Amino acid sequence: MKRIRFRLSALLFAALAATHLAAQNRQMPTLEDLIPGGVTYRYTDNLSGVQWWGDACIKPSVDSLVAINPATGKQTLLATRTTLNDALTKAQLGTISHFYSVQTPWADRTHLLIDLRGRYVVYDWDANAVLGQLDYPRDAANRDYNLASNNVAYTIDNNLYVNDRQVTREPEGVVCGQTVHRNEFGIDKGTFWSPKGELLAFYRMDERMVTQYPLVDITARVGEVNWVRYPMAGMTGHKVYVGIYNPQTQATLYLNTGDPTDRYFTNISWAPDARSLYLIELNRDQNHAKLCQYNAETGERMATLFEETHSKYVEPLHPILFLPWDSHKFIYQSRRDGFNHLYLYDTTGKLLKQLTQGDWLVRDILGFNRAKKEIVIASTEQSPLQSNLYKVNIQNGKRTLLGNADGVHSALLSGGGAYLIDRYASPVAPRNIDLVDVRSGKCLRNLLTASDPYADFVMPTVETGTLTAADGKTELYYRITKPADFDPSKKYPVIIYVYGGPHAQMITNSYRYGVGGWHIYMANRGYVVFTLDNRGSSNRGREFENVTFRHLGVEECKDQMCGVEYLKSLPYIDANRIGVHGWSFGGHMTTALMLRYPETFKVGVSGGPVIDWAYYEVMYGERYMDTPQSNPDGYNECNLKNLAGNLRGHLLLIHDDHDDTCVPQHTLSFIKACVDARTYPDLFIYPGHKHNVMGRDRVHLHEKITRYFDDYLK
Amino acid sequence: MKRIRFRLSALLFAALAATHLAAQNRQMPTLEDLIPGGVTYRYTDNLSGVQWWGDACIKPSVDSLVAINPATGKQTLLATRTTLNDALTKAQLGTISHFYSVQTPWADRTHLLIDLRGRYVVYDWDANAVLGQLDYPRDAANRDYNLASNNVAYTIDNNLYVNDRQVTREPEGVVCGQTVHRNEFGIDKGTFWSPKGELLAFYRMDERMVTQYPLVDITARVGEVNWVRYPMAGMTGHKVYVGIYNPQTQATLYLNTGDPTDRYFTNISWAPDARSLYLIELNRDQNHAKLCQYNAETGERMATLFEETHSKYVEPLHPILFLPWDSHKFIYQSRRDGFNHLYLYDTTGKLLKQLTQGDWLVRDILGFNRAKKEIVIASTEQSPLQSNLYKVNIQNGKRTLLGNADGVHSALLSGGGAYLIDRYASPVAPRNIDLVDVRSGKCLRNLLTASDPYADFVMPTVETGTLTAADGKTELYYRITKPADFDPSKKYPVIIYVYGGPHAQMITNSYRYGVGGWHIYMANRGYVVFTLDNRGSSNRGREFENVTFRHLGVEECKDQMCGVEYLKSLPYIDANRIGVHGWSFGGHMTTALMLRYPETFKVGVSGGPVIDWAYYEVMYGERYMDTPQSNPDGYNECNLKNLAGNLRGHLLLIHDDHDDTCVPQHTLSFIKACVDARTYPDLFIYPGHKHNVMGRDRVHLHEKITRYFDDYLK
Repeated sequence: MKRIRFRLSALLFAALAATHLAAQNRQMPTLEDLIPGGVTYRYTDNLSGVQWWGDACIKPSVDSLVAINPATGKQTLLATRTTLNDALTKAQLGTISHFYSVQTPWADRTHLLIDLRGRYVVYDWDANAVLGQLDYPRDAANRDYNLASNNVAYTIDNNLYVNDRQVTREPEGVVCGQTVHRNEFGIDKGTFWSPKGELLAFYRMDERMVTQYPLVDITARVGEVNWVRYPMAGMTGHKVYVGIYNPQTQATLYLNTGDPTDRYFTNISWAPDARSLYLIELNRDQNHAKLCQYNAETGERMATLFEETHSKYVEPLHPILFLPWDSHKFIYQSRRDGFNHLYLYDTTGKLLKQLTQGDWLVRDILGFNRAKKEIVIASTEQSPLQSNLYKVNIQNGKRTLLGNADGVHSALLSGGGAYLIDRYASPVAPRNIDLVDVRSGKCLRNLLTASDPYADFVMPTVETGTLTAADGKTELYYRITKPADFDPSKKYPVIIYVYGGPHAQMITNSYRYGVGGWHIYMANRGYVVFTLDNRGSSNRGREFENVTFRHLGVEECKDQMCGVEYLKSLPYIDANRIGVHGWSFGGHMTTALMLRYPETFKVGVSGGPVIDWAYYEVMYGERYMDTPQSNPDGYNECNLKNLAGNLRGHLLLIHDDHDDTCVPQHTLSFIKACVDARTYPDLFIYPGHKHNVMGRDRVHLHEKITRYFDDYLK
Repeated sequence: MKRIRFRLSALLFAALAATHLAAQNRQMPTLEDLIPGGVTYRYTDNLSGVQWWGDACIKPSVDSLVAINPATGKQTLLATRTTLNDALTKAQLGTISHFYSVQTPWADRTHLLIDLRGRYVVYDWDANAVLGQLDYPRDAANRDYNLASNNVAYTIDNNLYVNDRQVTREPEGVVCGQTVHRNEFGIDKGTFWSPKGELLAFYRMDERMVTQYPLVDITARVGEVNWVRYPMAGMTGHKVYVGIYNPQTQATLYLNTGDPTDRYFTNISWAPDARSLYLIELNRDQNHAKLCQYNAETGERMATLFEETHSKYVEPLHPILFLPWDSHKFIYQSRRDGFNHLYLYDTTGKLLKQLTQGDWLVRDILGFNRAKKEIVIASTEQSPLQSNLYKVNIQNGKRTLLGNADGVHSALLSGGGAYLIDRYASPVAPRNIDLVDVRSGKCLRNLLTASDPYADFVMPTVETGTLTAADGKTELYYRITKPADFDPSKKYPVIIYVYGGPHAQMITNSYRYGVGGWHIYMANRGYVVFTLDNRGSSNRGREFENVTFRHLGVEECKDQMCGVEYLKSLPYIDANRIGVHGWSFGGHMTTALMLRYPETFKVGVSGGPVIDWAYYEVMYGERYMDTPQSNPDGYNECNLKNLAGNLRGHLLLIHDDHDDTCVPQHTLSFIKACVDARTYPDLFIYPGHKHNVMGRDRVHLHEKITRYFDDYLK
């Protein structure tokens, strides 16, 4: 694995400069400044709605829409708001208040797609004319507009609609056209248009057999229950069906998958000719995946192209992707060699070649350059803390870095595959947006260099480093945040901020190494804030992640204790004042650390924690834990209620009363276990919030957390 | 109002003696020692199951049942457990493990009534023979056994049964044979046998139209809702019907009361001849009561004997009581002259005379002495802090004190009305049980003089006194509890323990003036604990109570602030360390004091509080507050959510998640109001408990409360 040196020197310099200025006239940022939702929260500068129109970069503003030629930098005015609104008003269609959300999706046409509330409008800026409109009901959700056919799919309540027709008429408890399997397996929507928009695949989820969890709404005149169908680990799951609707014939057929009990249908994709549909089917154990092809006309299964198994779990997250120049070949992503890489298959299911390889992983496929037969990806090849852009030649496998080798990049590939809008941050750059030439890999021009929105504030120093995991060999990344006026001869209290679960990474080479606003705030209050990405976390490969299998939280805690040992080795850390805070999986970790290592942690704040995996949902929970029936020892070991008697320090549990991800039963049953065991946690509940306290109340939350540490750790 | 001087000298002497000994070898009591539910909690000695058999006093023990002749003291062995159990075993009826729960209810027969689980047994101790048995199902609840007829009424789920027959067959939501109107108006049961047991009056409550509040049981595999039908102030109430069942004919008729909407049918009593039934009907406004007579054979209303109204509220709490020697005269209790007194009426509704009068009140009627035409009562004539026993001559109104003039007495009158089992406590006596001669009023013999169960522990000093209420004239009683090693030159933090609502009195002349275990504990930890019975509380008469009408909590808080002013005048009180704690109405008061006087109170712990009277139930809530529709200003003024922004000190709210008296919506909606207002209360929830944390967890609760004061007030 290649690694770049962190530009610590530069960052430290910046921090020192900040410290120096602090003595003069910098002010301390408040939580209102630092926490999203705060009234004075500062967003980093951005360019909203920047997009491609073919190979031209489209840059919207409030009043105009401009095209930039990436090669020359030449700017062309496409439309003004005045002109557009005149045309819209004349057609009695309403007006826009800015260009940030208009789209230029047709490379070959001078057309804007405008989504006015309740209506799509197509406008020709060249002709200054409204070309068409497509109305949808105001309460339409999950809208999915197909550019080729101008069809729109959407849902109202639990049923699916296309254009002005109701497609399904299902009773409550059967949901159509929405995401299924609780958004696991990369599923984030429930409708899938065929490439030309003549057919719509959609999910139908029958969850009538799933137990409902009661969330109580105390803002009603008399408290009311909002029921959420929540299949808990080991219990009966919902059943998922895949339908195909033909807007022209208004006929719907369902794939003949057989009994869907305990089967996951994931990663739906269309064959380029729309004659068949592919999906990756997974068994309930999640250790056996099959790539299946179904006939879109008959619904019958045509083939199982290949299968993938693992003794722990497989986790298909990406639909297959056909090569745009060869409808018989597609790319399949798999962690089968330990890291997520690209494999080229043909439609008979034959593996043609592995396209990428190495002890790094592909994070994203951005698209293709048809002319050069290249695929453009984002990967961790530069560093596991990064996402950098590469083109990969499909013929010879050659990879070329696009844009710079720093930081965390995300990008939009132009229609022709020639250019990238490359948006990135690095430890010293809050946000840059470059236009990059895919051919040369070089930056052609810079569209934005955001300045630090907190430049006039006192900011702590942020550093990263590595230490060895509890297995004695794996390298783990940590981030340490110190007060701006740090004095190495003093003793500081330390707060470990932890997440620790799969699919997340706290330390990255993004701005200030991804440190959060509250970390900054606490460092300014005189705490050292420490974060470590333990084994089990993201972007380090399969073995790094699945070491936690069947006993979530145990190995993770051991790694966090390596972080504690490191902290204790630092002369400026007060080992008697170690605190810990985290949310969700991090809430589990916080509670687990407080209970498994009661001598170490004086104070913990655990938000929205998983307490007992038996209360967590089937898809995520069983992937890592199997079922309570098949893994009773693991569930027992990881059930924090069983450790409630160990509590010695101050532990504040915070839960939202509308948490439908991690239901309040976790925290409340833990409270009961503590009462039974005669231990004394503290509790707070945020009414009306879901899995996270968002919006304005997020400032309250962090003030609450801060006060708790101030009371007991400072 | 006559008043006795408190025996302060004696109590102070005891306290001083305790202090002196403390220095030597007394130990500090723990919460486990002091809180009911604690593993080492000490109950005051008592005589369980002492009762009358005619005019003989029956004293049970584990192994025997003894009769005591009150006049001579002679003891006669009636039965031994061995003999009784032999007889029961022979009849295959089971055995008893002690005599404490057997009854001797038939003065003219040597019979015991024994309630074995699932069966009543009548046993003749003279003949050593089982005379009869009456089985009932194991799941029978609300059992009501009639001694004259040997009929037993009971309920299973929501239906009524008599002997082995099901009387009602109602659907869920219609409840028969149980208490109605949420136990207000003195109602604590739902079945009423006629004197000879030939007819059974019973309540039928249709609450299908009442909104249900969801209490979530988090101990289930998946959280489940326990719904409770809870009519909130201003909302639709249940409808109550009164049925009469004839066990012989198995016929049921319902009183023809007309539409029961918004009417309360209270204080059911039978005419001595069982031909008619009396009840006191109250309108929803609770300011208009009618004593009504219904024909028990036809169900038709025979008469409205008289009516009683008040501009604020009337609150009939006692069924009429017929004179045993004259079935045309009855006693009616009323606060119409400002204090609860006895009025003699005839069955035409004519007032014959007021039997008692004065600025004190009748607390209880114990029974009659037929021979002397006397009625025996308990009253506050000696002191509003007391309950003393009197006989009242119905002819001439003459009252004679029975037993001593100290403390708080409760008593059982013998069958013939000649003797009393007089159970009492006083500031210096934990519990005495005397046999008192009603004729002379003198104590004939002492059955028990309990010793102080905490004699070997360090105990604080407890004193009472009076101060003037916020109205500038009313005398209020307070109690102050000081550490055993009190040093008047020191400055102490003070905790005000408050209830403050109607129907309760915190300061009485019972043992140590009624001080609670937690008060003792906190005084031992170095706090002064103070309690004041403000206007609105019990046993001080109608005007004292109803000054709070339509704005509950406001006058009460003003009076509590008089207590604060008094405390501040004491040189040993640290005015910067004033805390407050209370539960239920006291939770409301605690929260209200924290919010209305934020400069005064540094710390509060509010348990199971009413926050918004609109969330409280119809019967209690509307009596004092009217409806939210008719008294919007009052509801607004008393809605503590509106004051959430005032919070400055540390306020811990504690609520039980199965609180069906004061639903969790109160506390949770207050938390939301504080989040909205950016104030920072603390919260704790006891899962599985109802309106109070009872049993073993009560110790945890008080440790939790203690820690909060220790953290922020000590």
